[in-house]
Amino acid sequence: MLQLIEFLGIITFALSGIVEARRKRMDLVGVYTVALITAFGGGTVRDLFLDRTPLFWVANAWYAILILVMAVAAFLFPGLTRVPERAILLPDALGLGLFSIAGAGFALDAGTSMFIAALLGTTTGVFGGVIRDVVINEIPFIFRSRYLYATAAFIGCWIYMLLIRAGIEKGLAVLIGIAAVVLLRLAALRFGLRLPGGH
Amino acid sequence: MLQLIEFLGIITFALSGIVEARRKRMDLVGVYTVALITAFGGGTVRDLFLDRTPLFWVANAWYAILILVMAVAAFLFPGLTRVPERAILLPDALGLGLFSIAGAGFALDAGTSMFIAALLGTTTGVFGGVIRDVVINEIPFIFRSRYLYATAAFIGCWIYMLLIRAGIEKGLAVLIGIAAVVLLRLAALRFGLRLPGGH
Amino acid sequence: MLQLIEFLGIITFALSGIVEARRKRMDLVGVYTVALITAFGGGTVRDLFLDRTPLFWVANAWYAILILVMAVAAFLFPGLTRVPERAILLPDALGLGLFSIAGAGFALDAGTSMFIAALLGTTTGVFGGVIRDVVINEIPFIFRSRYLYATAAFIGCWIYMLLIRAGIEKGLAVLIGIAAVVLLRLAALRFGLRLPGGH
Repeated sequence: MLQLIEFLGIITFALSGIVEARRKRMDLVGVYTVALITAFGGGTVRDLFLDRTPLFWVANAWYAILILVMAVAAFLFPGLTRVPERAILLPDALGLGLFSIAGAGFALDAGTSMFIAALLGTTTGVFGGVIRDVVINEIPFIFRSRYLYATAAFIGCWIYMLLIRAGIEKGLAVLIGIAAVVLLRLAALRFGLRLPGGH
Repeated sequence: MLQLIEFLGIITFALSGIVEARRKRMDLVGVYTVALITAFGGGTVRDLFLDRTPLFWVANAWYAILILVMAVAAFLFPGLTRVPERAILLPDALGLGLFSIAGAGFALDAGTSMFIAALLGTTTGVFGGVIRDVVINEIPFIFRSRYLYATAAFIGCWIYMLLIRAGIEKGLAVLIGIAAVVLLRLAALRFGLRLPGGH
Repeated sequence: MLQLIEFLGIITFALSGIVEARRKRMDLVGVYTVALITAFGGGTVRDLFLDRTPLFWVANAWYAILILVMAVAAFLFPGLTRVPERAILLPDALGLGLFSIAGAGFALDAGTSMFIAALLGTTTGVFGGVIRDVVINEIPFIFRSRYLYATAAFIGCWIYMLLIRAGIEKGLAVLIGIAAVVLLRLAALRFGLRLPGGH
């Protein structure tokens, strides 16, 4: 279950990485590298922090091969990636939800406390994008975003964990958690929700 | 003993991260993230390099919760963090000393050679600040600082280890090592000590 | 065998880091840090990803000591590092080849699939330079380079692995793989080979 969720998250994040790298007019290596970093970054940090071994993408080579196919396709059919900036917001929100809840689930499985699981879930969700932005030398998105992003992931992780604690069936809790992250993020974008103190 | 030192280092570094992030007018998520990165960065790299598991902040959730309370307090009582830049230099020097000596101690416990222990101690002391600067897209402090910083940590680690080798009681060696780092750093700031070749 | 190759790669990459840091007029700590990051970065990421422990430079303190001697020598005899930018291209290509093939070999030894081994080999070859550029706040070289770089490493890893599969003696396969990376990289520089889509 968590692995299916993770698979979907990898696809959506790889997609967002490819679109962003194409917009920067990178060549195939640049696009593939940015796609890998965006898709694998959060989960890699989570696996290293939790000492899970082997890393999810080392154990399953098909992830990296699939992203290579996606990156090549983006060059063969450039029209596919010529999308408006807004079009990336939905898959990005979905990826955030998928990775955060999967990350929190893996952390709980590894025996961490709930607060740490929420923190690691959020890290899994946002870190791929942070490394991507650092590598292409921009101020990371989570420091630039005016609207809830990491906060949406953090709250979604808590909803997921509290539902599990309340005895809800796990698959249902996962779905509700993911939906909570996505809806919070989209609502933040739509209604301009933000935390106090930002500029 | 090493853990108490580490706890104090976490507090001082989180404080310096919060002050810096507030000065950049970040929102709560940004402030909390920068505080976590500054406080946990060095120790996390050390634990990953030494394969110590679980990570110190995964094992002890109270560190992350305490830093969240500190970050929220910085928003509720903004006057607390409106300090002149100079005011951060003392806690920063203290954090550098605490983390470096604790890092060298953990490395020796893990069986590394003394040179590697000095290197890992220095890394533990400076890396949180390096990642923080990279993430907020500035040239890392240790490359900008005109005066001894990493060098103070490196020398302090050697003093600590040589005292241990000389048979001094461990708690005393820790205190002398930390004092050496702090005094060297403050003397460097006061008297403009620097390494050859800097500009 | 792989360790001898790795040793040579460390020397060449440390050299390229020292030259680049000297050109930026860094002080001794900056030069040593950049040299360490360039020389150890790729192998450290590989060891962390493969959960190899202890890290190669923690196990062998002489690497770090040797690089310190090199960094000090660069200050005592500054003429040594006042080389034209072109002069760094050959050792850099050599380091790329040495690290990539050694990385692919270690990955195969750890039981990864061939595609992942090629990916980890390439990562080992290019990551030191990527972290170096991120730390000194430049857009990483592999995103700026107009000509084949990571691609040369990737192709060389496949040549090495296919030769091994074909039953060629391992030492010979290593040499051919390294030669392939170096020649591809130098040919790319000489004849302007590049991937489609770059700008």
